[in-house]
Amino acid sequence: MYNHSELKKIVDKAIVNLAYNTEAEKLIDPVRYTLSMGGKRLRPVLSLMSLNLFSDHIEEGIMPATGIEVFHNFTLVHDDIMDQAPVRRSLQTVHTKWNVNQAVLSGDVMAFIANECFLQTPAAHLAKVFRIYNKAAIEVCVGQQLDIDFEKAAVISQDEYLRMIELKTAVLFAASAEIGAVIGGAEEKDSDSLREFGRHIGFAFQIQDDLLDTFGDARVFGKISGGDIVANKKTFLLVKALEVADPDQLKKLHELFADRDIDPESKIRRVIEIYDSLNIRTITDNLANEHIELAFSQLEKVNVKKERKEEIAQIAISLIGRDK
Amino acid sequence: MYNHSELKKIVDKAIVNLAYNTEAEKLIDPVRYTLSMGGKRLRPVLSLMSLNLFSDHIEEGIMPATGIEVFHNFTLVHDDIMDQAPVRRSLQTVHTKWNVNQAVLSGDVMAFIANECFLQTPAAHLAKVFRIYNKAAIEVCVGQQLDIDFEKAAVISQDEYLRMIELKTAVLFAASAEIGAVIGGAEEKDSDSLREFGRHIGFAFQIQDDLLDTFGDARVFGKISGGDIVANKKTFLLVKALEVADPDQLKKLHELFADRDIDPESKIRRVIEIYDSLNIRTITDNLANEHIELAFSQLEKVNVKKERKEEIAQIAISLIGRDK
Repeated sequence: MYNHSELKKIVDKAIVNLAYNTEAEKLIDPVRYTLSMGGKRLRPVLSLMSLNLFSDHIEEGIMPATGIEVFHNFTLVHDDIMDQAPVRRSLQTVHTKWNVNQAVLSGDVMAFIANECFLQTPAAHLAKVFRIYNKAAIEVCVGQQLDIDFEKAAVISQDEYLRMIELKTAVLFAASAEIGAVIGGAEEKDSDSLREFGRHIGFAFQIQDDLLDTFGDARVFGKISGGDIVANKKTFLLVKALEVADPDQLKKLHELFADRDIDPESKIRRVIEIYDSLNIRTITDNLANEHIELAFSQLEKVNVKKERKEEIAQIAISLIGRDK
Repeated sequence: MYNHSELKKIVDKAIVNLAYNTEAEKLIDPVRYTLSMGGKRLRPVLSLMSLNLFSDHIEEGIMPATGIEVFHNFTLVHDDIMDQAPVRRSLQTVHTKWNVNQAVLSGDVMAFIANECFLQTPAAHLAKVFRIYNKAAIEVCVGQQLDIDFEKAAVISQDEYLRMIELKTAVLFAASAEIGAVIGGAEEKDSDSLREFGRHIGFAFQIQDDLLDTFGDARVFGKISGGDIVANKKTFLLVKALEVADPDQLKKLHELFADRDIDPESKIRRVIEIYDSLNIRTITDNLANEHIELAFSQLEKVNVKKERKEEIAQIAISLIGRDK
């Protein structure tokens, strides 16, 4: 079996080795740039781990796993346009380094490069794998739409928020794990379990991501915290806080979010004070943990020896208690 | 066999009947809007005609043909952002009616809706058809990049221009015809011939399109002419004119294109005068006709009774002498 670090190297190598149509270099430069920005490659690694539960022929899943990563990076390039985000992973975003038109077009070609990766799925699984991927890809677009809509909405419920992150984030983790299982030759009930495993991993990942932006990650030096608060971003923390706040706290929150002249540091500190008084950090942590527990219970059901599950279980474990 | 008008109705119906993920209506509204704008549906009709040469089971090719049209409309939505075009087919473009972000995102989902259509290709042909489509899709992106690059370049050669329209336009016509032939069960040499037939049709179509913008189409009431001249767009006409003009004519052309205060009517009239003195209209018409001849010679080679070829040949004929 392969461990996490070996699989990440395999994915990184597959990304470096992607063959491009280079007749217009300007089209591909931002693609190379985006794909070389790094990142944890969590989705393709998850996919290959899922495959590796059932088969040692992980080479059969490398190109579709790579396709998932290319698709994910495609969404980042276009989401960054929509969010007018200047920086990602400490580097300029594509539309900042080049321009919006270039980010639209180079993003577009990444969607078809992802297709090209999926078209290299072994013939026996091609149609099924491509359908799983494509359904998720459409759902990710729906999730991004809901995200945009929610940013404009006055109030959104916890359920609405969770559905949005399910579509925008969790379904791609779900598809990653399911695709690996299918290529590995899993029986349907096992690939179904792994899909649900991936979905809960995705939920936990996004909820933790919200938490880390505000409460930081002690392990990551220089991690800037509070960006979501400064931007009035509707994270799980804020959605939950608006739901459980008393009238006085609600008023304070709305004042803080309406105040355009407030010093960012002070805004972050005062919002966190309210979050703390509402126990938001624990509530959020608990929700992430719940999803990790649900992920484990899905993994439990998979008809594979316990020893083989250790590596993929570690992905779930790594997502909780990061800050503890 | 089906005639052009029957096939167009079949394509229109398939487009109306597309099933969408409607959880975020705002995402799909611009998709419906774009796909209901009309248009000749030339690519899917060509694809089904090509299929119909070999088989009467055109239902097997309807979804991939629809996928080609959805993809084509996806490129229009994103190209219109890049060109800052306010109007298409007498209607507001998506980024004008909604906004740029919406046009990016609703465009994106169309790429995956196109995939969904291709995933409905009969299993025996799915992988091959999808590969033909996806290669063309990447080439269309390359063509759009070259188009953007060329608009910024001082001079481009006729060969560069023709390669750009080959990628941006002709390869999708080529893929349309080849995909139909493959699904119809054509032998490889016949599907190859139809691919080349489609490519030449695409060339002729784009060259005629350049010609019509400047010299108009007497059959289309109210067709606005000269938009390309006003916008200094590098069409085949201009590229050729810059190539064959004498120093005096070259100077006049550059002055006309540099003059930002000139009355559009007068600019159009004076550029056309130079075009006429250089015989640009005839040169361009001849080039379109050459491609139609090349298309016919490819069609000739296809191992199908002559009577069956009449309908598809008519597409080629309809592209020439429109203004005569």
